Amino acid sequence: MKNVIIDRLIGRIRETAPIVVGLDPTAEVVPEKFFTESSKNFGETPEAAAFALLKFNREIIDAVAGIVPAVKPNIAFFERYGLDGLRAYIMTVEYAMGRGLIVIGDVKRGDIGSTAAAYAGHIEPAPLFGRKFEIWNEDAVTVNPYLGSDGIEPFLDALRGRDKGIFVLVKTSNPGSADIQDLVVIDDKGNGGVPVYEHVAALVSKWGEGEGIMGAGGYSRVGAVVGATHSDVGARLRELMPHTFFLVPGYGAQGAGAGDIKPFFDNKGRGAIVNSSRGIIGAWKEEGKGAGHVGKAARAAALRMRDEIGAVL
Amino acid sequence: MKNVIIDRLIGRIRETAPIVVGLDPTAEVVPEKFFTESSKNFGETPEAAAFALLKFNREIIDAVAGIVPAVKPNIAFFERYGLDGLRAYIMTVEYAMGRGLIVIGDVKRGDIGSTAAAYAGHIEPAPLFGRKFEIWNEDAVTVNPYLGSDGIEPFLDALRGRDKGIFVLVKTSNPGSADIQDLVVIDDKGNGGVPVYEHVAALVSKWGEGEGIMGAGGYSRVGAVVGATHSDVGARLRELMPHTFFLVPGYGAQGAGAGDIKPFFDNKGRGAIVNSSRGIIGAWKEEGKGAGHVGKAARAAALRMRDEIGAVL
Repeated sequence: MKNVIIDRLIGRIRETAPIVVGLDPTAEVVPEKFFTESSKNFGETPEAAAFALLKFNREIIDAVAGIVPAVKPNIAFFERYGLDGLRAYIMTVEYAMGRGLIVIGDVKRGDIGSTAAAYAGHIEPAPLFGRKFEIWNEDAVTVNPYLGSDGIEPFLDALRGRDKGIFVLVKTSNPGSADIQDLVVIDDKGNGGVPVYEHVAALVSKWGEGEGIMGAGGYSRVGAVVGATHSDVGARLRELMPHTFFLVPGYGAQGAGAGDIKPFFDNKGRGAIVNSSRGIIGAWKEEGKGAGHVGKAARAAALRMRDEIGAVL
Repeated sequence: MKNVIIDRLIGRIRETAPIVVGLDPTAEVVPEKFFTESSKNFGETPEAAAFALLKFNREIIDAVAGIVPAVKPNIAFFERYGLDGLRAYIMTVEYAMGRGLIVIGDVKRGDIGSTAAAYAGHIEPAPLFGRKFEIWNEDAVTVNPYLGSDGIEPFLDALRGRDKGIFVLVKTSNPGSADIQDLVVIDDKGNGGVPVYEHVAALVSKWGEGEGIMGAGGYSRVGAVVGATHSDVGARLRELMPHTFFLVPGYGAQGAGAGDIKPFFDNKGRGAIVNSSRGIIGAWKEEGKGAGHVGKAARAAALRMRDEIGAVL
């Protein structure tokens, strides 16, 4: 297959910037006005909230399309409003794709066997009545590795021969990530000293090597989530996982700056994409602007981030 | 709060049996006939598939209500059919509750901070327009611990003061669970010997101790998922986690039998509930019966399992 997702992503990054905008529409970043206006049409209901989220996302997407290659809606913020919310998620995915953006669904699903295969429905059509139904249709999704290989294999089966990808959680950006991910374990040779996330990194590398999974540009369609808040970890994992593309959350609001993210990239300045959520979608608020400036402030913040990252790579 | 979920569960188990029926309606266990009949009303669509799943679940629920205290629908099998599927999930939850069953939503969600709080919407109402909307409303849900404490705390906040619970994945029943969960951790003194899942067990114990979280019957509303396929592990974790209620998958189709599950219970024969999915919901098929015997075969299988477990406890 030509032009698999990871090569498309690399190509689009070259034309724009290694930035993915996290669409995390919390009540904190979506202006009150979006909810009140939406409630005029839909009443004070979850449907109104879902429509407010969708309208907010569209404004962000319109503002950042052309500046960034990808968006990452986190399904939790839609799922909280039930079916209405999830309809807004699906419509957000469609709208972003229509604007030429690659969509990474931040779903962090994880289960085993036939259950994992059901979740893989996010990146492959559901077989039904002898036909195939595209239901979720993200370009890639994030996956939780805690259940091991038999939780990941159904996703590998789903992306083989289709233009899709996954990003497996390896080391996340939050403080609590240390609780399990940093535990020091004995390596394959019985020697000590390796944190759990390095073992997970080795698994992710292996999962990403299979036939039909490597892209043409040297990176696999099985990527890794590696938090920007740990730049020493980024350097180490970059070395351990030369063919694994990194999705790097934690930039901006979570504390990491442009200076911290260089180690996540390879020596050509490729191999990673940095996520910013609140720093871009909540820029209107941080700058003390009104609800009418959501898109404009997001665009300015994305351009600023592009320049900051461009200066260090 | 009187009669919190875990005490209700313990009480209902005493009246019935320590069995939860896993509602995992795969294409393998739902008779073809359910799909074809449903397609007469809804066409060959995801809506028809979702209705088939709901009808199947209702037949199972009617058959096992009164014999078992709880059901555990796995949301993945509904999510695969999109919004229609998830509507069937919500209706399954409601229907089971209406039949007096406790519902454990097997959602295995896991994220951090405000995102985890959004997922906690499964067990608490969504605040919206100054009101609270019950959207998902399971009695308890399963949660993935890989992201650490800040992924779990929002769930603890959600269940404090409400009649809800969670079950955290500790050691799962699948072969691949060894990949990460069995890694051997080195302690502070540089000595090895404790697997990752025992560390997770210690965290789960701690999370379950907080104020407003312990039930009156000696067990916490923060439970653990511990696979029946590892009975030595069950014995060890039972010892390490005296106040943690176990949800034990892997019985029947996944290989564990009644003889294997005793170590998961305390010395009074309490403290655990054993899940069976295919062994009960697919019993009609295993016995070579037709699609008209779904409920009858499920009921017989549940009664058989009750007797098998009763004999060893």
